Amino acid sequence: MLPEEDRKRVIIEGVKPEVDGGRFPVKRVVGEKVIVEADVFADSHDSLAAVVKFRKDGDLRWSELFMKHLANDRWEGAFQVTGMGRYLYTLEAWVDRFKTWRDDLKKKVAAGQEVSVDVLIGVELVKEAVSRANQADGRKLTEWGVRLERQSRSTLDPGFFTGMDDELLPLMHKYPDRRFATLYERELEVVVDRPKARFSSWYEMFPRSCTSQAEKHGTFKECEARLSYVSRMGFDVLYLPPIHPIGRTNRKGKNNQPAALPEDVGSPWAIGAAEGGHKSVHPQLGTLEDFRKFVAKAQEQGLEIALDIAFQCTPDHPYVQEHPEWFRRRPDNTIQYAENPPKKYEDIYPIHFETDNWQELWTELKEVMVFWIRQGVKIFRVDNPHTKSFRFWEWAIQEIKREYPEVLFLAEAFTRPKVMYRLAKLGFSQSYTYFAWRNTKWEITRYFTELCRSDVREFFRPNLWTNTPDILTEYLQMGGRPAFVTRLILAATLGASYGIYGPAFELCENQAKEFGSEEYLDSEKYQIRVWDMDRGDSLRQLIGRVNRIRKENPALQSDWSLRFHPIDNEQLLCYTKNTEDLSNIVLVVVNLDPHHIHSGWLELPLAEFGVDEDRPYQVHDLLSEARYLWNGPRNYVEINPREVSGHIFRLRRRVRTERDFDYFM
Amino acid sequence: MLPEEDRKRVIIEGVKPEVDGGRFPVKRVVGEKVIVEADVFADSHDSLAAVVKFRKDGDLRWSELFMKHLANDRWEGAFQVTGMGRYLYTLEAWVDRFKTWRDDLKKKVAAGQEVSVDVLIGVELVKEAVSRANQADGRKLTEWGVRLERQSRSTLDPGFFTGMDDELLPLMHKYPDRRFATLYERELEVVVDRPKARFSSWYEMFPRSCTSQAEKHGTFKECEARLSYVSRMGFDVLYLPPIHPIGRTNRKGKNNQPAALPEDVGSPWAIGAAEGGHKSVHPQLGTLEDFRKFVAKAQEQGLEIALDIAFQCTPDHPYVQEHPEWFRRRPDNTIQYAENPPKKYEDIYPIHFETDNWQELWTELKEVMVFWIRQGVKIFRVDNPHTKSFRFWEWAIQEIKREYPEVLFLAEAFTRPKVMYRLAKLGFSQSYTYFAWRNTKWEITRYFTELCRSDVREFFRPNLWTNTPDILTEYLQMGGRPAFVTRLILAATLGASYGIYGPAFELCENQAKEFGSEEYLDSEKYQIRVWDMDRGDSLRQLIGRVNRIRKENPALQSDWSLRFHPIDNEQLLCYTKNTEDLSNIVLVVVNLDPHHIHSGWLELPLAEFGVDEDRPYQVHDLLSEARYLWNGPRNYVEINPREVSGHIFRLRRRVRTERDFDYFM
Repeated sequence: MLPEEDRKRVIIEGVKPEVDGGRFPVKRVVGEKVIVEADVFADSHDSLAAVVKFRKDGDLRWSELFMKHLANDRWEGAFQVTGMGRYLYTLEAWVDRFKTWRDDLKKKVAAGQEVSVDVLIGVELVKEAVSRANQADGRKLTEWGVRLERQSRSTLDPGFFTGMDDELLPLMHKYPDRRFATLYERELEVVVDRPKARFSSWYEMFPRSCTSQAEKHGTFKECEARLSYVSRMGFDVLYLPPIHPIGRTNRKGKNNQPAALPEDVGSPWAIGAAEGGHKSVHPQLGTLEDFRKFVAKAQEQGLEIALDIAFQCTPDHPYVQEHPEWFRRRPDNTIQYAENPPKKYEDIYPIHFETDNWQELWTELKEVMVFWIRQGVKIFRVDNPHTKSFRFWEWAIQEIKREYPEVLFLAEAFTRPKVMYRLAKLGFSQSYTYFAWRNTKWEITRYFTELCRSDVREFFRPNLWTNTPDILTEYLQMGGRPAFVTRLILAATLGASYGIYGPAFELCENQAKEFGSEEYLDSEKYQIRVWDMDRGDSLRQLIGRVNRIRKENPALQSDWSLRFHPIDNEQLLCYTKNTEDLSNIVLVVVNLDPHHIHSGWLELPLAEFGVDEDRPYQVHDLLSEARYLWNGPRNYVEINPREVSGHIFRLRRRVRTERDFDYFM
Repeated sequence: MLPEEDRKRVIIEGVKPEVDGGRFPVKRVVGEKVIVEADVFADSHDSLAAVVKFRKDGDLRWSELFMKHLANDRWEGAFQVTGMGRYLYTLEAWVDRFKTWRDDLKKKVAAGQEVSVDVLIGVELVKEAVSRANQADGRKLTEWGVRLERQSRSTLDPGFFTGMDDELLPLMHKYPDRRFATLYERELEVVVDRPKARFSSWYEMFPRSCTSQAEKHGTFKECEARLSYVSRMGFDVLYLPPIHPIGRTNRKGKNNQPAALPEDVGSPWAIGAAEGGHKSVHPQLGTLEDFRKFVAKAQEQGLEIALDIAFQCTPDHPYVQEHPEWFRRRPDNTIQYAENPPKKYEDIYPIHFETDNWQELWTELKEVMVFWIRQGVKIFRVDNPHTKSFRFWEWAIQEIKREYPEVLFLAEAFTRPKVMYRLAKLGFSQSYTYFAWRNTKWEITRYFTELCRSDVREFFRPNLWTNTPDILTEYLQMGGRPAFVTRLILAATLGASYGIYGPAFELCENQAKEFGSEEYLDSEKYQIRVWDMDRGDSLRQLIGRVNRIRKENPALQSDWSLRFHPIDNEQLLCYTKNTEDLSNIVLVVVNLDPHHIHSGWLELPLAEFGVDEDRPYQVHDLLSEARYLWNGPRNYVEINPREVSGHIFRLRRRVRTERDFDYFM
């Protein structure tokens, strides 16, 4: 009834990070550390040793790094992930007999006890280690054994432990007795992405609106001219709604009218027509060749193109003829259109993921993404992934990333929290959030504390959008230009990844279709819009400055350091982000009320930022270039939303003498 | 690359209870419920169905009970455990296509839409169900199919859904399409004990002190006379320190003196002598036959005997000769005695759990417990389990409980929290706690909230001891008789299981060996003590009353309902326990200061107790029999520690008219 070997006395439990008992990987980007914590303990009072073991998926051998004891049986170790792909990690721990012996011996010597037999126990341990050591170390160990044996016959001199700790202890540490070592029962995973998974600035734009006349459909060629406009604002991802042929059957007209006029262009999300489906380009935008050129031109300007993956078909989609079994059929032999009873969407056929031909279907959908990867696309914004099978996404993303680890997936799921988290767990690199609807201090503080400071951050990377073609929030509708500025500063500093839908955003477009709706009036979803990009009141300069601040301040390129600080005015929000080494600390104060001037006293934990409470420090507003000398944790701020509705301060500590010119860094 | 079947759209995660990802079982007693919660959701907006599946270990078939949706994708189900032993449980969930269809149809009808084709979809679903149904139900379903088909040709009348919901919905619910059902990936365990695991009152006593002269060693026969004394105080477990032969080599004298005098009796925890070891009875206590008789007599008085399991040996223990390999050997060929450097315990040899002959050792140690089970012992108090291999305990307890599921194990481990919790997880039925050292309001509130309201309660059952032969706390030493009363009330009402070490406790023995020590002066660990049980100032009457209150009030027989309530005096502690149905609510108020009268206003959440805020209710002090009429949540309490330092109120709601005599229950 007893197992073959059960003398493993060390327990390893409470391992972090570990998502759902190891069911899902944690996420990192290249160059980041994985800090692993665990409870490690054994019966009795022996000293223990523990290592984190890690390897890149595919490598045969584990690397090991020693962990250190923090307190209360909690241990910590860390390793760095240096390449894209999957890493595995686990833990191993054992009783460190030599360390136990040494600590006990020290106590006995201190108490003046006779220890000759105890020293001989050490000799035995050293002799055992010889058999595990390489030749050179084995010789050294043998010498130590002899030395100890000699010691056992005399009184230990006080210098004995110093010599032993310097030489013998590290040597013994290298050749531990791991016969009864405990290996943690799970191998855990890390998915390592390229840095853009963590830090990215997105701009969404309808390519067909890259035109000077509403009657003239924009083309990829015309879009090329728009690239420098976007790139000069400092964005690095340009996301396009679907670029495929648009269905004609039941096409929606302007402002989502049930019947389209002949000249209406339809919604890009109504995918599929005689000209092709998910692997085709809308002929009015250009050819596949044009698209590839556009991708290349964008790249020259530092812009990556993100494509929309919307797995749904119009009645005109080639799949409907080629694979009628991929759709649900109604008893009258028509195909089931999309519905959210009592609403009907007769221009859209949802794909039936439970079809008996599911394997061919799933493979084809995956191939759609691979097709665009081959055209140079490395980022996908996935439309409503929560209305497709979770298992499909887990499988498809894993398959694709195995071959193309650089590909990133943004989940556009505005649904219940557990569903959004599940999508992130199963593989999406970034996720849309509820940011657009979090406007009060309490809402923002609570939501971003959950996203950035809880275990959620191990798998969920937020991407904060100020607006989208579907979301013109009440706050933006009501608050005028200051509301846009506030939401821009919040998105760009709360989120290492954020996005705007333009030019609607920078032109402060805030006309809703009707009162109580978040839909834009004359939405680009259903028509071509001509924008005056050069309007004097455009926010493009400010956006450019904000994005430059993001690039120059590494504190803003990650979310994990986000901390909110007290400020005695409910309309003012105060938070910081910092690099681990505190070389870059950014303090943001925002006025959430777009209508009134607000002022208040904020309070900073200066000691934690390495700032001397007794000496002045500088806060440098990177938006206005104003610099203020502050002293102590409590300081006064006043923000007029008619000017700029927030400060993005860099906190500069005094580093040199007062005679130097630039004495804050 | 695709698995054989991956069309399982439902996700099951966040299951509770689940200890360490299912690595350990949760604990229940016979008759209790296991309430299972989980996040259950799928893509899209379909209705779902979920069941808890459970079976007794050994049974081949699962039973299933439907779960219900709470909110925010959280589902709940429950099953009852009706016998001792192990149960397994897991979850299964699927898309409920019929319910989805019915809900959608209802919305369409409400919107006045034409639904003939939709009704036919229902017909298809009903026809599919026929193939899964038994004959009788199949006939009914077929009839419903015909009826629906007829309906599809006319307008649905308003009564249609009522009829369908009453008859067809439950029928379809019985025969769901579970082809793509998701089975939760783990099978979880419940260990079901007899009720005493949850509710028990312990009395510890040295059998050798059952004597009228310190020179005369008490015997089991004399102990029989003490049984009614203990039983009349209302205890149901009588725990004896080890009853085995005591070693002579390096025996400790009175008050733990290094050298024993010839007449010194030694410590019962120094186990093993020429007369035998762990399976023998100390000859001065009597024979094995005497012990068995004593166990039987105790049982007649409603007392179960709990034995001490202390796996350690004196140099005289037969194991030392028979199995020298079960002990560590020193280089001078002596056996390694116990030590905690620089302290040495040369009268004790610890057992070496890593011995190469570990399998024989472990088997023998398990057999020691089985031996005593065969003598009628069903409860073990295990001495310092944390200094023996965790894996040994997990294996031994599991093996023993497989054959003797009624056996209970109490872990006497006063060590770091994670170690104590691990022992509970791996199988100990009850655990000693830090209770003895938790004396202030903040300490008690924090500690018992952790034990009784967090997930810890799923595996850790606290047993609260006021004192032990090793623990005479500072509080008891300093506080006089009121301190004893306070600690008694706290132990007996905070803990469904508690214990005292007597007669030291009821006689308020509070002389420590020296200042700063928790050791008793003239400790029974090293000598026979003659106690005057009939002293007028004994607490035995009060203890008897407290134990009777525990028996009569089921609220006190479980820990999970414990809640602390605000009271505006730092020296007063206020808490309640209640049965699930609120038929029994006990309110305890204790004065933690043994020296001064304290008073304060407490505040109760009356609505949650089903008490009308506008009408008076009665609190009936079960200790003093005083009754008070209270009104509203805030009430005044004053406690004089010179009288009784706490109230144990039963809260009685008004249930009949005012003319009735007994109108509170």
